[in-house]
Order: sequence, then C-alpha cells, then structure tokens
Amino acid sequence: VAGWRHPLLLLCLTDCNAVLKALQPIFQEQGMTETVHNWEDHGYLVTYIKKNGSFANLRIHPHGLVLVDLQSYNDDMKGREEVDQLLNKVEERMKELIHGNIKRVKRLPAILRGGVIDRYWPTADGRLVEYDIDEVVYDEDSPFQNIKILHSKQFGNILILSGDVNLAESDLAYTQAIMGSGKEDYTGKEVLILGGGDGGILYEIVKLKPKMVTMVEISFDKWSLIHINLNVLDNLKGDCYQVLIEDCIPVLKRYAKEGRMFDYVINDLTAVPISTSPEEDSTWEFLRLILDLSMKVLKQDGKYFTQGNCINLTDALTLYEEQLSRLYCPVEFSKETVCVPSYMELWVFYTIWKKQTNI
Amino acid sequence: VAGWRHPLLLLCLTDCNAVLKALQPIFQEQGMTETVHNWEDHGYLVTYIKKNGSFANLRIHPHGLVLVDLQSYNDDMKGREEVDQLLNKVEERMKELIHGNIKRVKRLPAILRGGVIDRYWPTADGRLVEYDIDEVVYDEDSPFQNIKILHSKQFGNILILSGDVNLAESDLAYTQAIMGSGKEDYTGKEVLILGGGDGGILYEIVKLKPKMVTMVEISFDKWSLIHINLNVLDNLKGDCYQVLIEDCIPVLKRYAKEGRMFDYVINDLTAVPISTSPEEDSTWEFLRLILDLSMKVLKQDGKYFTQGNCINLTDALTLYEEQLSRLYCPVEFSKETVCVPSYMELWVFYTIWKKQTNI
Repeated sequence: VAGWRHPLLLLCLTDCNAVLKALQPIFQEQGMTETVHNWEDHGYLVTYIKKNGSFANLRIHPHGLVLVDLQSYNDDMKGREEVDQLLNKVEERMKELIHGNIKRVKRLPAILRGGVIDRYWPTADGRLVEYDIDEVVYDEDSPFQNIKILHSKQFGNILILSGDVNLAESDLAYTQAIMGSGKEDYTGKEVLILGGGDGGILYEIVKLKPKMVTMVEISFDKWSLIHINLNVLDNLKGDCYQVLIEDCIPVLKRYAKEGRMFDYVINDLTAVPISTSPEEDSTWEFLRLILDLSMKVLKQDGKYFTQGNCINLTDALTLYEEQLSRLYCPVEFSKETVCVPSYMELWVFYTIWKKQTNI
Repeated sequence: VAGWRHPLLLLCLTDCNAVLKALQPIFQEQGMTETVHNWEDHGYLVTYIKKNGSFANLRIHPHGLVLVDLQSYNDDMKGREEVDQLLNKVEERMKELIHGNIKRVKRLPAILRGGVIDRYWPTADGRLVEYDIDEVVYDEDSPFQNIKILHSKQFGNILILSGDVNLAESDLAYTQAIMGSGKEDYTGKEVLILGGGDGGILYEIVKLKPKMVTMVEISFDKWSLIHINLNVLDNLKGDCYQVLIEDCIPVLKRYAKEGRMFDYVINDLTAVPISTSPEEDSTWEFLRLILDLSMKVLKQDGKYFTQGNCINLTDALTLYEEQLSRLYCPVEFSKETVCVPSYMELWVFYTIWKKQTNI
C-alpha cells in the first residue's frame, strides 16, 4: 500500500529562496537524499528520497504557493504519525518565516493506492470521492460486465457495475424515485421492469398488490448474486410476479407483436447499454429503440419511469430529452431531482407519458 | 494552479526491470530529465522533470504495482490532453508487456491545488471528497470563526464554518430532521432555537403558526450575510418570532431564572462550541451545560432536538449519549439517521425528552 498526503500551504508573497532555506533542514534531518531543481519562472522543485523507499517532493512557487507531497509504503499508525509530525514542522517553520501571515493551509487526507480495497469511485460528473469501503464482498466478471459488491460502513453493500456505483442498501430513495415517488397506485396494475437486477424495485412493487409484475433482466449472474445481498424475492416466479432472464429487446418486440400492454414500464437498465441485439449503432439509438418499443407496450394512460443522469451533466440530459421528441409517438415528460445517498451527487429521474390527443 | 493525476496500474507479478525498460521511452521522448532510484525491497522510483516545470514520478513495486503521478502547472484543455495521452501510452505499453493480463487499472481525477477555489472539503469521518464548487461567494473571518459561502453547481450556496460544511441550499432534509421530521405540531407552541444562524429553521417554523419562536444566535455577521443567501426572514423581529444576537448561555440562564418554559428547544449550534461564557472547560462540559440549561427551560412534555454527528464516528456518538445520562434530570432519547445532500455522509439527529415519572 502506498499512502499519499497532500498538504497545501498558501502564503503571501515571499522569497522562494528563503522558503527553501527554512524547509530544507526538516527533510534533511530525516536522512533523506535531496535533489534541488530550479526554474526561473517556476521556482523550486526539491525531491527527497529515504532509504526505506519513502519519497517527498516540495514545490515552492514564485507566487507564494508551497506544496508538499509525501509517498510512503506503510499506512500504519506509526507511519501516519511520522507524516503528521513532518507536516506539522513544515507548517510551524512557514509560520515563523512569514510571521503567521499564511493565507491558507490545507492538508488533504492520504490517498491509498494498490490495496485490496479500492475506496475511490469518482462521481458521474468526474469528481474524486472516497467511500468508506471496508470489505470486498464480491468481484467477478460476468459475460456482460464487471460486478463488484463492496461494503460501505454507512451505505451497506454497494453494487458497482463496470466501475459505476449502481445502488447501495441505503438507496431506497432511488427505488422510490424510479417508481414515481409514491404518487402512483400500483394495485391491480400490469408492470414491466427492464433491468432492475438488484431486485429492489420488484421487491417494493410486489408489496403494493399489483396484478402482475414482469421483470426482464439479462444477467442471471447478477441476479443470483444480488439475491444474497439485497432484499430480493426468493423465487423467480410468484403469484403476481415473474422474472425473465433475457435480453429485453426481443421480449419487448414479442409483447408489441402480441399486443400486450402495461400500465407502467420502469426502465432500470444500466447507463451503458448491455444488449445482445445487433440493431443499436450507438448509445442514443439503443436508448431510442428501448423507448420506442416501451411506448408500443405502454397503455395510452400509462407511465414510463427511468433514471436519467447526474444533475451536472446537463448536456447529456438535454440530449436525452431531444431523443424523446424523436419517438414514433408524441410524448410528454417531467423530471425530478433526487438525492440517492451512495451517489454523492444529485440524480435526475424522468416520467414519460404519451401525449393525450384532443377528444 | 498545480494539477495532479493519479493513475493506478495493478499488474500480475512481473519483472520490475522489464517494466522499467518498457515505460522509460514514453517519458524520455517527452524530453524529460530522468533519475532512477532502486531499492532491493521496494523496486524502482524514477523521477522525470521537464523544462516547463512539469514533474512525473513512476513507481514500480516488486509485487506488481505500478504507480504514475504527474504534476503540472496548467490545467487547461491542452495540458489535460497531454496528460491523458501520456497515460494512455503507459497503459498500452503495460498491456503489450504482460499481454493484457492487467488485474486493475485506475486513473483518479486530477487534484487541483493552489487555485482561488478550493474544491476539497473532507467529510467529518476524514474521507477525501471533491465538491463541484464554481464560485467563492463570501470568505471572511468573524470574531468567532471563518465564514465561507461557496457556490456548488448542484447544492447551491454552501455555508462552510471554519472548514466544516454546515448547510447548503439543497439541505432542507437537515432542517426537517432537526425540527422532528414532520412529526411535530408547532401550532401555538413556544420554541427556542439555539444558534441556527443560517435562518433555515426559523423560516420553516414561522410557516407553521407557532405562538413565539425565539432564536439566539451569537454571530451577527453570520446572520447578516446568510440573510443575503438563504431564505431568511427580512427582520429580526416579527409577530411570532424574535432573533436575539447574544451568546445563548446567559440567555438560557436568564430564562431558567425567570421560569420561562418552551415546548421545543432546538439546538443548532456548531459542532465546535462558540461561547463567550467562561464556564466550559471542555467541549463535553460545554455540551452538558447547554443540555442542562435547556432541560431547565423545557416543559415536562417538551422536546429537545439536535444534530449529533456523522454515522461513522460511533465513539463520538457514544460519548454524547453518555453525557445524556449525566444531566440534572433523567432523560430519554431517540435517534434518526438522515441523508443531508451536501454532507456526502449520513448524519445522526437526536430527540431528547424528560423521563416521565410514574403517576
């Protein structure tokens, strides 16, 4: 395991050379081998290498920014204390040098790399976030994707599909949002779930006494494993539900041909489409194919629910909405922003329905 | 601005020397000055320094972990593309070398340091999280603390007090939780708010037709500035509310002496206590003083609400609960875990009430 610490010290304008002279002894007394690099425009970069493999670099920028990075092998308590002591000394020395006139001091938590447990799962909008992962519950490649279940202290088991945080045990908010946020009456209704392999939606809807829920999930592996970890029904078939382990495209086509209609279609497919169907040339065409087929099996007064994207990816949301104007039938939609605890970013959910023609 | 990229490449066991030979040309052809360090136990550390001030270091661990860190001055598009291209080459070369047999490849988003906007606000449990901050709205020191208002694209304005994320415009969930999660009837009630300087609680309770809400907030600066940014009432006094700009300790003592009683006491003071009162020797004693005084002004069937801590700081939560058994009167409590959007961690809220004596 290699641990990193990123303290950031922002100072008022001061002499680079004076900063270097003040900080050098701190590293030198650690018995580190020093190499000093100097640029006219960019100030100093000093590297320090220790016999035990530890490595530090110190940047002194001419406009008053001092950066210290430490790289070490061990993240044990002793190693952490040593790092903290060294950084305390750097801070003290800088305060002495410029008489407490430091504008900003910041230490960032260490980044742990190369360990068995990976705690860094960036958000959909590309921000770095660290999760409180303490256990790898499952990590396998299915024919369709990489499937991880990691345990988070606060969120419970988190399902991560090909690197995307999909759903955690804490995320009933996701399931409620994609079911229409409690505003729908599922009693006696025909419901079609596309995807939904974690079983959360099926589990919640079955409680609401629907006539029949059909869930179409491509990946049996996923189903069977989630099964162990989330509150999924024990059997693939019950009085008011059935689970089909199939690609949803041919199933939708079959239903469309048979004239089978649903009150609700819930699209809970992964963001990156998985299909054995050859028709999709691109993600958007695939999305539109699913939407068109779904509208064909949706009753005139039915509703289609789906998750969209994180609220910050406005371009992707706009593109999605443009697809909605290109379906075979005119539709209308509304959207809602929801906080799904394990996502660390707000998420947009869509409700789509067929435009009612004037009587 | 100094940008950092942290790709992480995990490989199967392979020869360190072969990895070094494969990767060296990628950096060398960038015109970087190379220094190779070698340890028997720790493999290689190679540093690369470019004329423009960029810096890279490559670690090749004997057990098959390869780490690349890049440090550059510019985070413009051109700089980012160059970094991506370099990392792509490293990845390709590694795949060629070990024939695609790479166990894990991970690139972390760049860490931006030294910019005007600081995007890194670690959670209470010490995890590194990056916020989507795009503007510094306010940044000043009051006599009591540093007050920042930073704008987040998704959470709106975020109030950060001495480095702690306090509340954002997205966080009605916080206000609802500390008001009893919608289970209380505030109509005609006497309410005391301790702290609450962002005005959210006052704003929400006034809508519920209380008899009188008294809010005691120490920091007028804070009040006046939040005022601009969150939905706070325009005046410090209205038909059913008043705001006292005072330390809450002497106010509580005065009320206790006068025998003034409240149906609800809501403690929304900051986690790190601010007081002009000399009595508190420690945080816990201060907390207990507030609790004892609050119980003195709480009606026998009244309720005391407060925020506790993040769910992962179990020791702090236990210590808090121990304080509750040491008050002048016996109390009982319940707690609830709530997802406050801008916190990036689950938060525990307490409801405390006086133990009812048997009739």
